[in-house]
Amino acid sequence: MTIERGYAPAVELRDRVGRTAAAMRRKGLDAIIVSTNANLLYVAGTIINGYAYIARDGEVTFFVRRPAPLLIGEMALIRKPEEIPQWLQSHGKPLPSTFGLEYDIESYSTVVRLANIFPQSSHVSASDILAAERAVKSRWEIEQLRASAAIQACAYSKIPKLYRPGMTDVELQIEVERELRRAGTIGLFRMRGGQLEMYMGSLLTGDNADEPSAYDFAMGGAGQSAALPVGADGSAIKSGQAVMIDLGGNAGGWMTDMTRTYSVGALPQQAIDAHNLSIEIAHAIARRGHAGAAAAELYDMAIAMVEKAGFAPYFMGHRQQASFVGHGIGLEVNELPVLHHRSKEILQVGNVIAVEPKFVIPGVGAVGIENTYVVTDRGLDNLTVFPEDLIQLD
Amino acid sequence: MTIERGYAPAVELRDRVGRTAAAMRRKGLDAIIVSTNANLLYVAGTIINGYAYIARDGEVTFFVRRPAPLLIGEMALIRKPEEIPQWLQSHGKPLPSTFGLEYDIESYSTVVRLANIFPQSSHVSASDILAAERAVKSRWEIEQLRASAAIQACAYSKIPKLYRPGMTDVELQIEVERELRRAGTIGLFRMRGGQLEMYMGSLLTGDNADEPSAYDFAMGGAGQSAALPVGADGSAIKSGQAVMIDLGGNAGGWMTDMTRTYSVGALPQQAIDAHNLSIEIAHAIARRGHAGAAAAELYDMAIAMVEKAGFAPYFMGHRQQASFVGHGIGLEVNELPVLHHRSKEILQVGNVIAVEPKFVIPGVGAVGIENTYVVTDRGLDNLTVFPEDLIQLD
Repeated sequence: MTIERGYAPAVELRDRVGRTAAAMRRKGLDAIIVSTNANLLYVAGTIINGYAYIARDGEVTFFVRRPAPLLIGEMALIRKPEEIPQWLQSHGKPLPSTFGLEYDIESYSTVVRLANIFPQSSHVSASDILAAERAVKSRWEIEQLRASAAIQACAYSKIPKLYRPGMTDVELQIEVERELRRAGTIGLFRMRGGQLEMYMGSLLTGDNADEPSAYDFAMGGAGQSAALPVGADGSAIKSGQAVMIDLGGNAGGWMTDMTRTYSVGALPQQAIDAHNLSIEIAHAIARRGHAGAAAAELYDMAIAMVEKAGFAPYFMGHRQQASFVGHGIGLEVNELPVLHHRSKEILQVGNVIAVEPKFVIPGVGAVGIENTYVVTDRGLDNLTVFPEDLIQLD
Repeated sequence: MTIERGYAPAVELRDRVGRTAAAMRRKGLDAIIVSTNANLLYVAGTIINGYAYIARDGEVTFFVRRPAPLLIGEMALIRKPEEIPQWLQSHGKPLPSTFGLEYDIESYSTVVRLANIFPQSSHVSASDILAAERAVKSRWEIEQLRASAAIQACAYSKIPKLYRPGMTDVELQIEVERELRRAGTIGLFRMRGGQLEMYMGSLLTGDNADEPSAYDFAMGGAGQSAALPVGADGSAIKSGQAVMIDLGGNAGGWMTDMTRTYSVGALPQQAIDAHNLSIEIAHAIARRGHAGAAAAELYDMAIAMVEKAGFAPYFMGHRQQASFVGHGIGLEVNELPVLHHRSKEILQVGNVIAVEPKFVIPGVGAVGIENTYVVTDRGLDNLTVFPEDLIQLD
């Protein structure tokens, strides 16, 4: 199965670099130096120890401290980035007059160091260019995401067999983590920027779902420790409470988000209604979320449905509410576009979006679903195909 | 058990902030703005959504976008960091003339944004101050690390029971991950900076141990995917090969490193000799590693022992060799001091160091041990107490 090693084919890498170079030319950049892992993975096909130098003509040079298995471009062994200008000059390549660096992700120290290697040049942010390119997935990338979602669905199908009465949320989560790993996920939860942190995902039951978290995820939870205050906290899973499972699929590094809600015993009607409303909202967004639709409009539609049903106090949290209903996903879990009220983004064919209209019902827990969808001309195409209704654990 | 929630007591937090403020005064800083997770965890006792403002008098204000459970200091709710100067002024507090920011870890965009909130002030790097304070662990912190190591040892003791003939390295690793989680680790592998990535740790068997990796870890491995090229790659575990297990303990967020080597069938004498040499080196470093010893000297001693035994081609890798034999560890896996040839650091009481003299024997795999030690006046005190000889899996 191609996803096992996960190398993107050369034609794919060339297309990524070519599109990035085209965006650079439109913005007047002569070069971008890529130095952070997820973006290096995007342009090199694997993690490298060094830098990718993309020139405006679409040529890419990988300046590496250790040899890397590369399918495109040229590889130059260096000990430090200050050697880059000399290499370019000795290979007859022009030095950039304006070049881009990853302002939003790379450390201040590294950006300043890289800026100083071209003291005659001016530098600008390249974060937006790279994020915009990565937000539009190719056919090959969508196939990788489809495979990752299938692996995730395979593991989720075993969840009822993993449950045993008397389990805590953490105990059940550990068994689901193991099934996801056995099914083929690499585990790592890759996120843009240093602020978000997560082990493999989140499992919430009962009122722990209503515990505010410091992290900007859709849902909270106290977590197992003050050192990672999010998600399962060791609560016993009790009859009449919901168990929301949102653990990451990421076979081959391609992340898919799928949330399903399980229950022990019967849930109160209010929770069942909220869960069904979540499914309705996800389906409505899937119908309206064709290429050309505004991300903000999809969020506003969700809010209107929630308000009409009288569920506003519980939407995207209760004591603390998140202000988005979906987010781009791919090599990282927080990509573009974001479905929130102030979003300026217009959906494009090939965007991949996790849509997660969730509710927290006090005394019961979190209910709702999350699917990962591809934007098409006709609406959203679901990658995370799996039963959406509440699933009984016992 | 205190480690379960992991909040540091108020007296501990006050001491951390007080020592940081003293270091600031020595360096002429009037304030530090802490904005990255591991350092926020250090000064706030938990992850917060916002900033810790430490003034030279040792007072700390937590400027947060969401309320946080705090044991010390003052909490001020803000929407954006630009509100900080006004809050300080309205509370009769001076604006800094020189202040520190986390140059080495925080993104360029965020450092520039925070720098601009005090346009009349000059900013400098605070990364070194915070790293130096964190490198010296308190009695309470050492107790947390001791508890984390005990949990790790508990899980490691079950490894022979987890092995079944015919398993791959990934299959065995998944079972060890589960045991570590069941024993109480939170899973997250926290590392300083964005370059290193790891799921819960590394398991290496046979010649996969000799596969170079892009990451600067002690050992390599091809990994399961081009998206995370390090560690287990799906190799079958074979008779006559070593299985090196280096998965992270991190109960309560306090990370401990412990590596043990297992084998199926008998290993060649060369591998057994290398493993015993690893134990000898670790013990020699433990004897010589008292407060006042130079980190570089400990590395040089290890190299001398390796060369005398004729094992230099296999030390810290074979096709690719790492240039260190140990590293500080605590809230993150890559803290100070580092034991390498060019290190300028002198060991201090309370440093916690993972010592990992490892060998890669072609055709056999990686052998050796890793222990996490505390620096005392008399030498290193081992936290990861667990049998060190080769352990038979079958």
